[in-house]
Amino acid sequence: MNVEIISIGDELLIGQTVNTNASWIGKELSYLGARIVKTVSISDQKKEILEGLSNIKNTTDCVIITGGLGPTKDDITKHTLCEFFNTSLELHKPTLEKIQYFFALRNRPMLESNNLQAELPKSCRILENNYGTAAGMWFESEGTIFISLPGVPYEMKGIMTEEVIPKLKLQFELQSMFYRTALTQGIGESFLAEIIKDWESKIYSLGYSLAYLPSPGIVKLRITSTRGKKDAEEIDKLFKELESQIPKYFFGYDSDTLASVIGSQLKAKNLTIGTVESCTAGKLASTITEVPGASAYYLGSLLTYSNELKHHLANVGKDTLLKYGAVSEQVAIEMAKGGQHKLGVDICISATGIAGPDGGSAEKPVGLVWVAIATPNKTISHKLQFSQHRGRNIHMTTLSALNLLRIALND
Amino acid sequence: MNVEIISIGDELLIGQTVNTNASWIGKELSYLGARIVKTVSISDQKKEILEGLSNIKNTTDCVIITGGLGPTKDDITKHTLCEFFNTSLELHKPTLEKIQYFFALRNRPMLESNNLQAELPKSCRILENNYGTAAGMWFESEGTIFISLPGVPYEMKGIMTEEVIPKLKLQFELQSMFYRTALTQGIGESFLAEIIKDWESKIYSLGYSLAYLPSPGIVKLRITSTRGKKDAEEIDKLFKELESQIPKYFFGYDSDTLASVIGSQLKAKNLTIGTVESCTAGKLASTITEVPGASAYYLGSLLTYSNELKHHLANVGKDTLLKYGAVSEQVAIEMAKGGQHKLGVDICISATGIAGPDGGSAEKPVGLVWVAIATPNKTISHKLQFSQHRGRNIHMTTLSALNLLRIALND
Repeated sequence: MNVEIISIGDELLIGQTVNTNASWIGKELSYLGARIVKTVSISDQKKEILEGLSNIKNTTDCVIITGGLGPTKDDITKHTLCEFFNTSLELHKPTLEKIQYFFALRNRPMLESNNLQAELPKSCRILENNYGTAAGMWFESEGTIFISLPGVPYEMKGIMTEEVIPKLKLQFELQSMFYRTALTQGIGESFLAEIIKDWESKIYSLGYSLAYLPSPGIVKLRITSTRGKKDAEEIDKLFKELESQIPKYFFGYDSDTLASVIGSQLKAKNLTIGTVESCTAGKLASTITEVPGASAYYLGSLLTYSNELKHHLANVGKDTLLKYGAVSEQVAIEMAKGGQHKLGVDICISATGIAGPDGGSAEKPVGLVWVAIATPNKTISHKLQFSQHRGRNIHMTTLSALNLLRIALND
Repeated sequence: MNVEIISIGDELLIGQTVNTNASWIGKELSYLGARIVKTVSISDQKKEILEGLSNIKNTTDCVIITGGLGPTKDDITKHTLCEFFNTSLELHKPTLEKIQYFFALRNRPMLESNNLQAELPKSCRILENNYGTAAGMWFESEGTIFISLPGVPYEMKGIMTEEVIPKLKLQFELQSMFYRTALTQGIGESFLAEIIKDWESKIYSLGYSLAYLPSPGIVKLRITSTRGKKDAEEIDKLFKELESQIPKYFFGYDSDTLASVIGSQLKAKNLTIGTVESCTAGKLASTITEVPGASAYYLGSLLTYSNELKHHLANVGKDTLLKYGAVSEQVAIEMAKGGQHKLGVDICISATGIAGPDGGSAEKPVGLVWVAIATPNKTISHKLQFSQHRGRNIHMTTLSALNLLRIALND
C-alpha cells in the first residue's frame, strides 16, 4: 500500500507548529507495512488544497489528509473536498447526535458552527470522532482512498486508531509485515550497538531487519520480518537472548512503559510505593500514576522542594542538610527512608538534584542528581549526571530512577 | 519571494524523525516576509528526488532542499543534483581544506568518504559549512534558486544563518512578516470565535489575518501582518482589546505558559505556593516547576492518592471523607486548606477527581474533578467535567487549575 500524507495549515508552513501528525501517521502505517511515498504540507487555501489533491501519484493507494476541519471559518477543507469529489454537504444525523452528546456531557451550549460540523459530504463514508466534534471522512475515487481527518493530534490519533487502521487492514493485505520492539533504558545507541553486535549479526543472518529507535533516555530495538507472523516465535527467542545480555537496560516490549512494568512488579509482589521528590517535583509520581489502576500500589508522595520541607515533611536531619547540602547521597537516602515511614509505603524513591539552568557549582554542576530507593530490606543510592537542560534533566532523572527501581524489584 | 522546502530522508517518511528542519526554515523565512508555499518530504532515492525537483511550481523563487548530503553511501542528493542541473563533480579545494582542518581540530583521522565530500558540482556556488563536513550548494536555473543543505539541524541552521539568509536578502526585497500570538485557556475554538467575532472582523478590516491554533485545553490566536514590524504597535493595541474582552481565558503571549505567567504573578506579589494533589498525582507541581527559578515561590507539595494520606498528611477530616467521598467539593477545600497549613505556603491548590478509565459512577462519572484554591484571604472551589481519557483528564485538570489560580491572583 503506497501512502501520501497531506497536512493542511499555514501554521505548519510558517513553522509555528511542527508537523508531528505526519510523523505519527508515517510511523503507524510503516509499522503495518505501508510505504509512505511522500508527505506534503500546504496552505489552508482552496486553490492549494485542490492542487495538492490533483498532484497525487497514480501509484498511490491511499491519501491521508489532516487539518482544516475545525468549526471556525478559516477551515475550508470540507468544502474543497466536496468540490473535488463533486458532491455536496448534507446533515449527518449520527454525527449531529454525537456532537450534541459531546456538549451535553460537558454541560455547554452548542453553537451554530458546531451544528454545521454535522453537515458532511454525501459521497463519503463517515469516520467517527470520539474525541472531538469534527468527523473524519473516507472517499474513494478511481482506486485511490482519500481520508480526511482533523488536525488536532489527539483527535486525529483517535480516529486513525479506531476507524482508519482497522478499515485499511480489511482492504489491504497489511499483515505480511511482522515486527516487535524491545525497550531499553539507560544506554546510548552506539554503546548498545557495541554490546550487542554479535546478536545483531545473527538478526541479519536470519533475514530480519533491525532498527534502532532512539529517544531521550530510551532506545527501542525493532526487529521486522517481511514474512509475517510465522516468524513471531523465532523473534521472541531472539529477544530472550537479548534480555539476558542486557538485563540492566532491557525493560519491556512494544507498548510497555517503565511505569507499567513497575506497576506489574509491585502488584505481583503486593507492595506499595510512594516518592519523595525535590528536583523532579512530581514528575516521578505523575509518571508512576500514568498507569490506569495505579491506586492499587501508589499511595502518595511528598514533594519537598525547600530544605524546610525536606526536614519537616520527610524527617531529613537538619545537620545532614547542613553538612552535605540538599543535593547529596546522604540527603537522598534520608528522604527515601523518611518517606517510607511518613507515607506508610513499602518502597519509597527519592530524587534530589540541580535541574538547572542555574544553581550549579564546580563541585555540584547543573544536571547532578542523587536518587535513593528504600525497600523493606535495603536502601540503594545512585549518582546521575546529566546536561544543562532543565526539562531534559527532569525527564532523564525520572526514567533512570524508575529503571533502578525495576532492577531492585527483580533482585 | 515564494519558497518551497524539500526534505529528503526515509527517516522522515517513516516517522522516525520529526521534521523540525522544515518548521525552522519556515519560521525564519516567514519572518523575513517570504511566503512558504509548500513543504514536501520524500525518500532518499534518485527517482524521487528528481521528481521532487521537477515538480516545483513556476511561481516559486527559491527551493530549499535539506538532507542527503552526509558521507555515507545512502546519501545521493549531490549526484542527483548534478544530473538535474546537467553538471559534474570536481574537487573544491577550499572545502577540502576546511574538512581537513575540521578533522585535525578534533584529532581524528579522515576517511575516504570525507575526502569525497569536497567533490562538489561545478556549476554551483558553494555555501560554507562551519559546523560539519557537508558544504551547502546554491544553483540557479530559469529564474529559480535551488539551495541544498545538510539535514543535521545544527549544520543546516548554521549555513542558513551565515550564508543563505544574507544572500537571499541581497537578491530579494524581503519585507518583514510580523506576527504575534495571544494564548487562551478554558474555552473551545468555536465559543471563542462567537465571543470575539466583532473583534475578528476588525482584524480583517485592518488588513491582517487571524488564525486559531487549538491544542488540548489551549487555543492560540495569531495575528499576522504582511507589512512588517511597523504594524507591531497597532497589533499590540488590538490584543489589548482582546484581553479586556476575555479576561477569564486570555493568559499571555507567544512563548508564555500558564506556569510562567503564574510564576511572575507570585514573584511580583511575593507569595509562596504548594499543591495537594490526588488525581493529578504531581502533574500540577511538575508543571509549576517547569519554570527555571521556580524555587523562589514553589516550596513543596503533598500527593495524597489514598484516603489515609488525605487525612494524615493534609488534615482532611475522616468524617468529611466518609460523608462526601474523596471526590467532592468539601474534600478539595479541606485538602487546599490543610496543605496551606502543613506546607507553610501562602497559596495552596488542590485537585481531587476520577481520572479514569475506571472508578466512575452515575453520580460521579469518570472525568469529574474538584479543584480548590486556598489563598491568604479566601478559598475558591470549582467543579470540572472532562472525558473518559485518563491522560487527557489529568492534562486538562492541570491547565484549568492553573488558569483558575491566575484569575484568583489577578483579583
